Amino acid sequence: MKTDIDRLMKEADLDALLVLGPAAHNGPMTYFTGLAHLSAGGNGQPPCFLLKMSGRKAIHFHLPMEREEAAATGLQTKNSYEDYDYPALLEQANRDSNQAAALLLETILTEYKIHGRIGIYGRIEFGHWLRTIDFLRRRLPDVEILGENMLRSVITQARVTKDDSEIERIRAMGRITTAVVGDVAGYLTSHSVKDGYLVNREGEQLTIGNVKRKINLWLAMRGAENPKGSIFAVGRDAGIPHSTGTDADPIPVGQTIVFDIYPCEAGGGYFYDFTRTWCLDHAPDDVLQIYEDVLEVYETVYSAIRPHKPCCDYQIQTCELFEAKGHPTILSNPMTTDGYVHSLAHGIGLDVHEAPSFNMKYDDVLLPGSVITVEPGLYYPDRGLGVRIEDTAWMRPDGVLETLVEFPMDLVLKMQGA
Amino acid sequence: MKTDIDRLMKEADLDALLVLGPAAHNGPMTYFTGLAHLSAGGNGQPPCFLLKMSGRKAIHFHLPMEREEAAATGLQTKNSYEDYDYPALLEQANRDSNQAAALLLETILTEYKIHGRIGIYGRIEFGHWLRTIDFLRRRLPDVEILGENMLRSVITQARVTKDDSEIERIRAMGRITTAVVGDVAGYLTSHSVKDGYLVNREGEQLTIGNVKRKINLWLAMRGAENPKGSIFAVGRDAGIPHSTGTDADPIPVGQTIVFDIYPCEAGGGYFYDFTRTWCLDHAPDDVLQIYEDVLEVYETVYSAIRPHKPCCDYQIQTCELFEAKGHPTILSNPMTTDGYVHSLAHGIGLDVHEAPSFNMKYDDVLLPGSVITVEPGLYYPDRGLGVRIEDTAWMRPDGVLETLVEFPMDLVLKMQGA
Repeated sequence: MKTDIDRLMKEADLDALLVLGPAAHNGPMTYFTGLAHLSAGGNGQPPCFLLKMSGRKAIHFHLPMEREEAAATGLQTKNSYEDYDYPALLEQANRDSNQAAALLLETILTEYKIHGRIGIYGRIEFGHWLRTIDFLRRRLPDVEILGENMLRSVITQARVTKDDSEIERIRAMGRITTAVVGDVAGYLTSHSVKDGYLVNREGEQLTIGNVKRKINLWLAMRGAENPKGSIFAVGRDAGIPHSTGTDADPIPVGQTIVFDIYPCEAGGGYFYDFTRTWCLDHAPDDVLQIYEDVLEVYETVYSAIRPHKPCCDYQIQTCELFEAKGHPTILSNPMTTDGYVHSLAHGIGLDVHEAPSFNMKYDDVLLPGSVITVEPGLYYPDRGLGVRIEDTAWMRPDGVLETLVEFPMDLVLKMQGA
Repeated sequence: MKTDIDRLMKEADLDALLVLGPAAHNGPMTYFTGLAHLSAGGNGQPPCFLLKMSGRKAIHFHLPMEREEAAATGLQTKNSYEDYDYPALLEQANRDSNQAAALLLETILTEYKIHGRIGIYGRIEFGHWLRTIDFLRRRLPDVEILGENMLRSVITQARVTKDDSEIERIRAMGRITTAVVGDVAGYLTSHSVKDGYLVNREGEQLTIGNVKRKINLWLAMRGAENPKGSIFAVGRDAGIPHSTGTDADPIPVGQTIVFDIYPCEAGGGYFYDFTRTWCLDHAPDDVLQIYEDVLEVYETVYSAIRPHKPCCDYQIQTCELFEAKGHPTILSNPMTTDGYVHSLAHGIGLDVHEAPSFNMKYDDVLLPGSVITVEPGLYYPDRGLGVRIEDTAWMRPDGVLETLVEFPMDLVLKMQGA
């Protein structure tokens, strides 16, 4: 949680955190500012950033035009243009904006007497800032500006455990997400079937593109944003976990549809992540069997998950359970594209993928207060099928894993419009 | 244009461009991949990136799960997991994902015999990649990995001039944007007025939050995305260019509303940028005067804009025109918050703000084929007003500046629902 940051900075021997970039769609910054219209600066303006010193409140350095937005964050604020005479710095830097940014940072680090190690963060144009930091490193050789290991960084670790307000925001996104999934189910099943594909009243085939447009619309209606799109993948596409589906394709009955949806709060805040696999009208026997295997593994692993255990244990357990049922997995063959081919889970919050990692290569421990997905799946692209079930769940402080929003698991959606 | 990249690389003495990060909401990557579901990798997976060597087709290095999405880009593709035995690299790196990423990059740079200068790009978590690049620099001391000056980088310069397909995509976003602006105008004027504020049929006050929700909805209906929100700022908020408006505030008649909307293609592609200032029902005389000043300056400057001239000339001209009318500007007082306080214009494309810059400190030249905004404004926060007019325009190859989508300039919107 945010209240852990000073302790984590001490453990990491960091004197300051420097967070770059805008407040929207930039987890490390949003974590401090909340949802706000604070831009990254640049392009003739000074850069905007946040400085968090050990034991002190964070300071946001903002543009003149965004002074009221900055003040509304409740953070300490400084005007990175007026308070530091940025035009003079830009002249001193021969109008080189990277050098001017480095001079501005040098001035501020000197003002606050920061001499030691500074961890740097923010989703921002990398090359532009690399040039700035290279200038700054040359000017301040005694200050160590470093990137932390993303999986272990101070902000990553703080963000792993969520406070009650974060849980409620993620849950609210879950309510929106599942409501839209329900809307999509109703929309699909209201169609008629012709030659094995969904058609509307005019007899025209419904396409994946039509459905995706509706998903975005219904998310917007409920106040959510969908910056990463969604997966609505049918048949062979469903057999490849990250294939998103082809817009022009029609929608068949009796084939697996993997519908994976991961929207966030409008303005770039907390995410939810959710998948159901559907067969419209009916499911072939082999799909049904695969689905039952996934569901059984989901339920077995879900009920086994406890706090304070290594996350990778559950990934290994999932692999072993699938292998016992005769499915290949990445445990025995890391290169397999058939069977179980991805991680069981991941943390989620201001990023759709954040710590903890369930990858077998890492030793992340599942902490009470964290929010994770649980998403086993089986994929057989050459057989034209894939199945995944995913919920987002809160490892509560009392050690109970709670699905934030419940939603039916049914594979087959009966057609209503036929 | 993309076809300029090899020439620009030569001029910048760069042997390769290395572009990091996902394909969505990441201009430098989207420029090569188009809209695609290609993630950034990481978190136990190898990183994803693109390598463009001088005189050669770009290569995208993708995750196994995204092989079909990568192939669909038409780029040359490699699987950064299987083709380089990433699990072995991760072991060699003692499971440190930054070191493993550096080893992967070292392997690839060696494979392609890249020894010289590499320009690095991509909107990505800065600290994470700084750690990777610091490792790589230590391992390959003879390779120079550098950030370019953002205003002058190879990809920035290529992107300044748009080809016909880019123009048509920006224009299509303009049609969506202006259609939504028309919807908003119709929605506002369909309300009744009570005690000077808009109310619905139940007599409840309409709020800015209500309007912003509708904006997002109508953009989604038309297939656009709104990742940066919009400005719908009334009265004093309108007097501060980047104040976005307060959701809970009601909407008055007879005060300036600055409505600035800058959505992009769903999936994170091309932007449009557009502003109108409205007074509902009527405009006070002082507002009308300010508005006429802005409109006159807009028309004078717009008609003066020619290709191959320094962009800052038009910024200076705008300041001089406003000062001649008695308004303070940043030409005489860079710190003023009254009068004309920002740039006349900016380039627009895969980012809402991109080159060229119209800042007086820079010497960007306006090239035929570029797309720019034109957006003079006047701000008097203490008088509770602000006025800005903005269109997006194409500097055509024949030297004519063409507004991509026309829309009425009226200040006063007559109420229809009263």
